[in-house]
Amino acid sequence: MEPWRTAITSSDEKSIFVRGYDVTSLMTQATFTDMIYLLHQGRLPAKEERRLFDAILIGVSDHGPSAPSAAAARIVASGNRQSLEAAVAAGVLAIGDAHGGAGYECMQMIRENLDQARRESVSIQDAARRLAASAKSERKRLPGMGHRIHTEDPRTRVLFEMASESGLAGDGIVFMQALEAEARQQIRPLPVNVDGALAAVLHDLGFPPAAAKLIFIIGRVAGLTAQVMEEYAREKPMRVRIPVTYDGPPPRELK
Amino acid sequence: MEPWRTAITSSDEKSIFVRGYDVTSLMTQATFTDMIYLLHQGRLPAKEERRLFDAILIGVSDHGPSAPSAAAARIVASGNRQSLEAAVAAGVLAIGDAHGGAGYECMQMIRENLDQARRESVSIQDAARRLAASAKSERKRLPGMGHRIHTEDPRTRVLFEMASESGLAGDGIVFMQALEAEARQQIRPLPVNVDGALAAVLHDLGFPPAAAKLIFIIGRVAGLTAQVMEEYAREKPMRVRIPVTYDGPPPRELK
Amino acid sequence: MEPWRTAITSSDEKSIFVRGYDVTSLMTQATFTDMIYLLHQGRLPAKEERRLFDAILIGVSDHGPSAPSAAAARIVASGNRQSLEAAVAAGVLAIGDAHGGAGYECMQMIRENLDQARRESVSIQDAARRLAASAKSERKRLPGMGHRIHTEDPRTRVLFEMASESGLAGDGIVFMQALEAEARQQIRPLPVNVDGALAAVLHDLGFPPAAAKLIFIIGRVAGLTAQVMEEYAREKPMRVRIPVTYDGPPPRELK
Amino acid sequence: MEPWRTAITSSDEKSIFVRGYDVTSLMTQATFTDMIYLLHQGRLPAKEERRLFDAILIGVSDHGPSAPSAAAARIVASGNRQSLEAAVAAGVLAIGDAHGGAGYECMQMIRENLDQARRESVSIQDAARRLAASAKSERKRLPGMGHRIHTEDPRTRVLFEMASESGLAGDGIVFMQALEAEARQQIRPLPVNVDGALAAVLHDLGFPPAAAKLIFIIGRVAGLTAQVMEEYAREKPMRVRIPVTYDGPPPRELK
Repeated sequence: MEPWRTAITSSDEKSIFVRGYDVTSLMTQATFTDMIYLLHQGRLPAKEERRLFDAILIGVSDHGPSAPSAAAARIVASGNRQSLEAAVAAGVLAIGDAHGGAGYECMQMIRENLDQARRESVSIQDAARRLAASAKSERKRLPGMGHRIHTEDPRTRVLFEMASESGLAGDGIVFMQALEAEARQQIRPLPVNVDGALAAVLHDLGFPPAAAKLIFIIGRVAGLTAQVMEEYAREKPMRVRIPVTYDGPPPRELK
Repeated sequence: MEPWRTAITSSDEKSIFVRGYDVTSLMTQATFTDMIYLLHQGRLPAKEERRLFDAILIGVSDHGPSAPSAAAARIVASGNRQSLEAAVAAGVLAIGDAHGGAGYECMQMIRENLDQARRESVSIQDAARRLAASAKSERKRLPGMGHRIHTEDPRTRVLFEMASESGLAGDGIVFMQALEAEARQQIRPLPVNVDGALAAVLHDLGFPPAAAKLIFIIGRVAGLTAQVMEEYAREKPMRVRIPVTYDGPPPRELK
Repeated sequence: MEPWRTAITSSDEKSIFVRGYDVTSLMTQATFTDMIYLLHQGRLPAKEERRLFDAILIGVSDHGPSAPSAAAARIVASGNRQSLEAAVAAGVLAIGDAHGGAGYECMQMIRENLDQARRESVSIQDAARRLAASAKSERKRLPGMGHRIHTEDPRTRVLFEMASESGLAGDGIVFMQALEAEARQQIRPLPVNVDGALAAVLHDLGFPPAAAKLIFIIGRVAGLTAQVMEEYAREKPMRVRIPVTYDGPPPRELK
Repeated sequence: MEPWRTAITSSDEKSIFVRGYDVTSLMTQATFTDMIYLLHQGRLPAKEERRLFDAILIGVSDHGPSAPSAAAARIVASGNRQSLEAAVAAGVLAIGDAHGGAGYECMQMIRENLDQARRESVSIQDAARRLAASAKSERKRLPGMGHRIHTEDPRTRVLFEMASESGLAGDGIVFMQALEAEARQQIRPLPVNVDGALAAVLHDLGFPPAAAKLIFIIGRVAGLTAQVMEEYAREKPMRVRIPVTYDGPPPRELK
């Protein structure tokens, strides 16, 4: 078997180096948010990048026990009282296209539309207009926009303002704001949700699309661990009883 | 179905509150490490607590692609190129008694021994001596001690020094250091590894034993996401070919 | 890296051998149940063993969408519409001590009590009496007994009758039936549930305790895949909305 | 919360019904393969359907410890000795597009091409020719064809012969065989692998595309449980040591 190559972490008997930095130096001089940034970007963030990155991670870290990831984690904890890791992992598995994973798709959409606009010398505004029109005519959902609970996601405003104030707002945010305006005019009010805001900000920070899902997972795992802890501490095993209606074939005999 | 109770997060159409704080305030004024602390402890950490907690999370965040959690995540990524969350979850599932989960058992050991010492008015030193002696005679492994690679875990020293310098070191650290000294004398050199250090420090910060595994998971998920990203970016699907020796029954015929 | 040893499956460019049999011969002459038995026992079952093993696998294969494993699978499917394997895996993760995993503990209990009875030349009847008495005085739950829904598990009766009629009933079943009788007298009616029946029958078929959980998983995965398929086919993403009551700290300001 | 609807299983205090049949009747009169078929199709299979379905499940049940699913399960078992379900679930998570999941994509390809051929009154032969030509010109991989080890998958031949002899072979098999012939002529020898064979046969049995992955999972879980059992029984925890080469930045100082 060939050795596995990695550019992330090396270690010997005495030391562990992450992206070239001795982990003990990082432990004394960096924050966990620095470390996440370093692991993914290969460099430590500047102060303003760190603050924005902190805000992203905080913003997605928990949304209550009813979110599919937390509900899955709690139900697993309800049936399996011996494996904390099983409950957290089940929560991670619920993070997909419909829950928490829309940022991935949104970031791809941002990239493709900005690339195309650049190639065709079209303004970002026009690119957004075009996309909203095509979403309307093809009746396609715009990823990162709309929310089942919030009419305006308060986390979006904060992320966009922080990015703007610190000079980190780029074409990703401009595009998503233009798209929101166009959607309001052409389709209906579809506020940029936290997935969309995360996608725009991560794009402007230079992350690839897959990072939208991975960074969401890092943030949300913080909340999932707390949800699992609460389930273990407060609830009895097997307490979840979901009401069920059977609408299949009536009782029948085997021939 | 009865509503699920939670003391962690509430939200309405306009706001999300975590442990009573508006998430948008947290996004602008706190760090992700604060948030993790808040989610688990119900209050924000003091500055020194935050620094120590950052050091813990950084210390466990990655240990290269060969650790079982990272290896599992990469192999899943190798067979399944369509689900980042599946790869990260598989990594989380490898975090058990033998890898990353020893802190849980260690923290229970710390608690039990300190409780017993208190009840019996025995000094921490004597409690450690007694435990080392019983581990020797019963040939039982001491959780949180020894490492398959490091003869002395550099992360342990840093965590204990930081705790000590900031006045946060308590009986947990005292006990683990006494146990290391006793093990060296009675058994063999068994340095406190990062799991044991994390257990001691989290104990002194007031966390329950289950937190040792959950906080490890939060930290390590940062590394797992980077390992998965690298696997997707650098390696072909199905690239892992583990050499296998078959030593079962020879070919035989079905009657 | 040393080659991984295995006594299960070998393959070359032309053939795959499982426990020494060419897989193509098995495909034409065996049933899937034979294959499961072969994978775990190293030999094909006799006809009566196969029938009993079929009954076990059928008996545990599904119990509706409200069982924790099915509920977890469906909630993951609700948030993540792109990964069937994530939903099935989440269901598997819910199979623990409180749900489906009690057979493991029960089989260990059967083994220990029968071994002890043999060593001490105590009758199975007396061993069961002793265990029921100690469970009562120590207020300990007896694994594999009692059910949150069924007062008498219909699957237990079928398994025990089939085993008896085919001459495969052994000390495991005798012990569990004796324990049920003793529990009724000393504690309260605690019928052997399907986990306990599966444990007794697998014990008598010569399986180790861990098999109780693994065979349950094989059977239940059949049901989980059907539950996931139904969720994808009939329900919208994010349809699950669990009612939540927040009982944590009231809104407060960050200082 | 609205009750969850299901057409699969209902139960009351006394009985469990699957698709309308009392589970105790199924336990005494059916095989596990019948049960899987019933769960997914809503009816019991005819004798020839059962034999073919058995052959599918057997054919995919194990392929040694080096397959990504088995390797992931074993590595998780190596780090986590306390959770059999975690190891099996990790194995399930490795079943994706590159490993075991190609049947899904292949079945969609079969469906689309047959539908299009029907609409355009094109022969299956011509549809296969057209698809091979477009795969060649667009350099696109054909799902369900080719294998990293086998030059001809012995399981494919058996499945196609069994289907043909029992009168169950339909357009799915005809199409895949035509595609293999066309690929050999236009591209290079690309034998139908077991994923492709499973897709063709399941199509002809009337299953939807998602079933290709789900049925593969059911079969493979049998092998995964045996691989996990062997890992627990024969190997020490943490035994896996994958050789690693670090090629990232050299040691550097934190400013």
